[in-house]
Amino acid sequence: MISRPQLISQIKQKKSFLCVGLDTDIEKIPSFLKEYPDPVFEFNKRIIDATKDLCVSYKPNSAFYESRGLKGWQSLIDTWKYLPVDCLNIIDAKRGDIGNTSDMYAKAFLDESATGMSFDAITVSPYMGNDTVKSYLAYPGKWVILLALTSSAGSKDFQYLTTEHGFLYETVIQKANTWAGDDRMMFVVGATKSTEFANIRKIAPNNFLLVPGVGAQGGNLADVCQYGMTKDCGLIVNASRSIIYASNGEDFAEAARAEALKIQQEMQMELEKAGVI
Amino acid sequence: MISRPQLISQIKQKKSFLCVGLDTDIEKIPSFLKEYPDPVFEFNKRIIDATKDLCVSYKPNSAFYESRGLKGWQSLIDTWKYLPVDCLNIIDAKRGDIGNTSDMYAKAFLDESATGMSFDAITVSPYMGNDTVKSYLAYPGKWVILLALTSSAGSKDFQYLTTEHGFLYETVIQKANTWAGDDRMMFVVGATKSTEFANIRKIAPNNFLLVPGVGAQGGNLADVCQYGMTKDCGLIVNASRSIIYASNGEDFAEAARAEALKIQQEMQMELEKAGVI
Repeated sequence: MISRPQLISQIKQKKSFLCVGLDTDIEKIPSFLKEYPDPVFEFNKRIIDATKDLCVSYKPNSAFYESRGLKGWQSLIDTWKYLPVDCLNIIDAKRGDIGNTSDMYAKAFLDESATGMSFDAITVSPYMGNDTVKSYLAYPGKWVILLALTSSAGSKDFQYLTTEHGFLYETVIQKANTWAGDDRMMFVVGATKSTEFANIRKIAPNNFLLVPGVGAQGGNLADVCQYGMTKDCGLIVNASRSIIYASNGEDFAEAARAEALKIQQEMQMELEKAGVI
Repeated sequence: MISRPQLISQIKQKKSFLCVGLDTDIEKIPSFLKEYPDPVFEFNKRIIDATKDLCVSYKPNSAFYESRGLKGWQSLIDTWKYLPVDCLNIIDAKRGDIGNTSDMYAKAFLDESATGMSFDAITVSPYMGNDTVKSYLAYPGKWVILLALTSSAGSKDFQYLTTEHGFLYETVIQKANTWAGDDRMMFVVGATKSTEFANIRKIAPNNFLLVPGVGAQGGNLADVCQYGMTKDCGLIVNASRSIIYASNGEDFAEAARAEALKIQQEMQMELEKAGVI
């Protein structure tokens, strides 16, 4: 379990606010790993070993594990067990359902006695409102990371609709901040939306923002920091494909480390520039 | 795989538009089932045997299976295999993510070669827009059932926001109907919102609507039919708890049948009244 002060302290210590996205696709990992009993877990293990001093968070996306059925779920459980305790462990599950069903999703990802996994944080979809969030907040110390403004083209379809309280994504942030404090609630804001960060900081001045979209999706780290960084950093920037698939050879873990190091160094500069460290 | 004409024909033949929600909670099933190797599957099997001539659809909610980890996923796979081929088999998963991740969710629930399951239809959350829907539509003949107006209190938080195109849920329906035809796209509309059905029929005149909330959640079937039924019926009404937990004793399957029969008879009256049969 990682509290807000612990997260900030990790960021300062590691001079990094990097989250490594473990979107591990068995079709894309080096073929020599196929000889291991669980190639996906073996891949994740080596990625974690190679990057854990450079990042403050790991984020497996559940879809990549679900797509392999029972074997995939076993890989996810084994990966969760292997995640370093000093990192914020996020399950990117984007779940959302009514109360009694949300309780079941919370059990699935936050209750080790039920499924062998207890992530620190879960991504949640806001469409069904407060019902969908309460179940996770009932677990002491766990974080909800609510989708607000996502990085892909489809974000234009609904998130930018103008409502009586501003854009839909702004209304989501404002309302969700009445449901929990910034010690339990984060928001997903895509890196490809850097000009929106200044705007978002007006309504979410202290919340941590989980920022996907740097790397393969084309977002720019300097822009995100310029408009989104707070005195406590306030950002967790995720990179998945650009790190974990940096090489497809036997050197994949070293290549992942090199890529993570490059990002960490850029992050250190940004943290120094903003006076966080 | 159930096409729109096949679904309509099933409804006319069975004089029913009932979907039985398999939200099977191991804590709530009769205790004598605990002696079976997989109590949840044993429960589902008996519920299916007792109701399959009275309903046109089954809908397991994935949360209830995920909450039991690997054992739960095995129950879901076994349940899928046991579902009757003449029923529309819906996985209520409410997934939603960007393109490459949505592909993985589609694989998880629609691709039997990957996970041992291939449901006819999947419920999807619209927040991330078109990206999240395309992956499922890429599977020929499969249905997307998009959340529009849900039955719980949290639906007030965002779904009723006024946008430039009407309420958010109306915008979702209008936009989604440009992504696929009514032979591939349905919408979730809660039974507790019966007065909204007339309104929804203006923008979704022919789409099938999946209607949860009759029974335990307090929705009224006659109201739903009055405002929502089309000449092809156009409704699939789900009941979960009121059917599957009708009794907690050894007679649970008979009690479930009696409850399903009661609903089917009410449905038959409504179908006759509307001239569908």
